[in-house]
Amino acid sequence: MEFSLIDRIRELTAQARDDVHLGIGDDAALLGVPAGQELVVAIDTLVDGVHFPHGTAAADIGWKSLAVNLSDLAAMGATPAWALLALTLPNADVAFIEGLAAGFAQLAQPYRLALVGGDTTRGALTLSVAVHGFVPPGQALLRAGAQIGDAICVTGTLGDAAAGLKLVQEAAGADARATYLIERLNRPTPRVAAGLALRGNANACIDISDGLLADMGHICAASRVGAEIDASLLPRSSALLDLFGEQASRDLALSGGDDYELCFTVPAKHVATVQADLARLGCGATKIGRIVEGSGVEVHGADGQRLAFEHRGWDHFGT
Amino acid sequence: MEFSLIDRIRELTAQARDDVHLGIGDDAALLGVPAGQELVVAIDTLVDGVHFPHGTAAADIGWKSLAVNLSDLAAMGATPAWALLALTLPNADVAFIEGLAAGFAQLAQPYRLALVGGDTTRGALTLSVAVHGFVPPGQALLRAGAQIGDAICVTGTLGDAAAGLKLVQEAAGADARATYLIERLNRPTPRVAAGLALRGNANACIDISDGLLADMGHICAASRVGAEIDASLLPRSSALLDLFGEQASRDLALSGGDDYELCFTVPAKHVATVQADLARLGCGATKIGRIVEGSGVEVHGADGQRLAFEHRGWDHFGT
Repeated sequence: MEFSLIDRIRELTAQARDDVHLGIGDDAALLGVPAGQELVVAIDTLVDGVHFPHGTAAADIGWKSLAVNLSDLAAMGATPAWALLALTLPNADVAFIEGLAAGFAQLAQPYRLALVGGDTTRGALTLSVAVHGFVPPGQALLRAGAQIGDAICVTGTLGDAAAGLKLVQEAAGADARATYLIERLNRPTPRVAAGLALRGNANACIDISDGLLADMGHICAASRVGAEIDASLLPRSSALLDLFGEQASRDLALSGGDDYELCFTVPAKHVATVQADLARLGCGATKIGRIVEGSGVEVHGADGQRLAFEHRGWDHFGT
Repeated sequence: MEFSLIDRIRELTAQARDDVHLGIGDDAALLGVPAGQELVVAIDTLVDGVHFPHGTAAADIGWKSLAVNLSDLAAMGATPAWALLALTLPNADVAFIEGLAAGFAQLAQPYRLALVGGDTTRGALTLSVAVHGFVPPGQALLRAGAQIGDAICVTGTLGDAAAGLKLVQEAAGADARATYLIERLNRPTPRVAAGLALRGNANACIDISDGLLADMGHICAASRVGAEIDASLLPRSSALLDLFGEQASRDLALSGGDDYELCFTVPAKHVATVQADLARLGCGATKIGRIVEGSGVEVHGADGQRLAFEHRGWDHFGT
C-alpha cells in the first residue's frame, strides 16, 4: 500500500526538472545542485489539531504542509526546487490522499517544485515536509545581520490567520470576511518572490510563523539588537479590523502565528525602494518600527506609551 | 520550548563539517554539495507502536530513526553527510529528548553526519528523519539493473529483528540470545561501508526494511526480471536458529522486516570477490539465489520444492 500511495502522490505532483536525476521509486532520490549554488534545506511538521484544526480539508492540509516550508525558503531568499513528504495517517483513505496531493501540487506547480521522495506510515495524522532550494553563496537572508537604525518591515497583513483560527473554533457564520480570514489560515501564501527581491537589500529576515513578537525576538537575539515596534503601524486587513475591532486585531497582529509573512530589516534609506519592489510583487511591505541598541522587542502605541503583552507568541509546548 | 529542545539536540549531535555553512538556528540550513557529486536524499518516519514497540528506550529510538535512513543511503552506495529531524512528541520530556539525541548522535558520530535542521511539535510520538549523502554521478546503486544470471546476495543475517519483535511482544526472558535479537531490532546497523564497496560491483541493490520477499520483489519489478531464492541458503544467526528452530527462522528470514541488511545482485563471476570485500568490512555476504527471466520471487527448499508464502512482508497498512 505504501508504494501505491506514494505513486499516486507522485503522479499528482509530477514536475519535469533536469536536476532530478532519479525521483520517487528507489531507496533515495538522486539530485543535481546547480554549480555555484548553496543548497538551502528546512523541515517542518504539521500535526492534526495542533497546526491545523481537526477537520481541515485534505487539499488545505496538503497546501499548508508545503506552504510553511516554502515560507522558510522565502525567509532565506532561496529559490525552491525539491521536497520530501513524510505522511503519517490513520488509514489508507484514497480520497483524502488525493485531496492532499492535489493541494500540495497546486502550490508546488508554479514553482516547478518536484516531490522527490516520500514515506507513508500509519498513525495519527502528521505531515513532515523537507524542502530544498538554492541561493547564490553568501546571498542568503539571515536572522543575524539587523543593524541599529534599520527600518523593520513586514509583508502583507498580520493577524489574519490567528483570527481565522478563532472563527473556525467558534464555528462562526461564513460571511465573506470570515471566509477570507479562514482562507488565510488554511492557504497561507509563502512570500517566495518577496524573499528573492529582498536579497541584497534586507539586512535580516525571518518568516512570521510563531507571531510577530516571537519571530522579531529571534531577529533581535541573533543580531544582538533591540526592536521598537509602533503598534499603530501594524498592517491589518479590513476583514480583520471589521470583525475583531482595533484592540483585538492589534493583539492578533502582534502575537498571532501562522501568517507566514516576512519580517525584515532594511537600511532606512532603502525602505521606499524595497516597498516599491514588493508592491510590484503584489504583497506590499509596511514599515512598523526600527532596530535600536539593546535587546528584545518593545511595542509602543499611537500615543508613544509602551504596551505590555503576556502572550508573546505561539509555543508548541505551551510553556 | 521548541528552540531549546532543538538547541539541546544540536549540542548533543554537533559535528564540524566544512560543508555546513549555516546549521540549526535560522529558518533553513545553508549547505555546500561537493563539486561533481550527486546529492542523494531520502526520508523515513518511525511511529511509536508501529515501527518500534511502545516503551522502547529513547536512545534506541534515536539510533533507529537515523539507522533506517542511513540504510537507504547505504542501498544507494552513498556517503552520508547531513540529516534533518522532525520530532513530534506528547510532551517536552527533557530526559527523553536527551536520550533520543544521545542515541542519534552515537550512530551519527562515526559518519561525521551533521544534524542541520529540525522541528519539534506536540503530538503522538513520531520521528521523521531526512538524510542527505553524496555519490559520484552515475555510480549510485539502483533497484533497476539486475541482470539475468546475476547472483542474489544479502549482507549479515536475516530474520533477527522480526524475532526480536516477537520476543519483546511476548516479554520473553532476557537470555543472551534474546538480548542479541532485541538489539538487532532496536539498534540496526546500516550497511553504509558495504554499500560503498558495492559501487561498481553490484548491478542492483535495496535495503531489507520490509522483508526479503517484499524487497527482492521491488528489485524484480524495477529490473523486469524474476528471482529464485534457495531457502536453505538464507543466512541466520545462531541466536535465531536456537530460539526459533529451522522452519520459523526460515519464515522470519524470508518475510520479517526491519533487518536493514542489503540485498544486491552481482554477476556470478564476481561473487567471491564481493564476498571477500564485505567480509573485510565485518558484515559478510551470502549468496541466496539467482536472477532469472520472468517476474516475481520464487523460493525453493533444500529439496528443490517450491515454497508458498502467504505473508510476503511488512505492509504499513496491513492490506
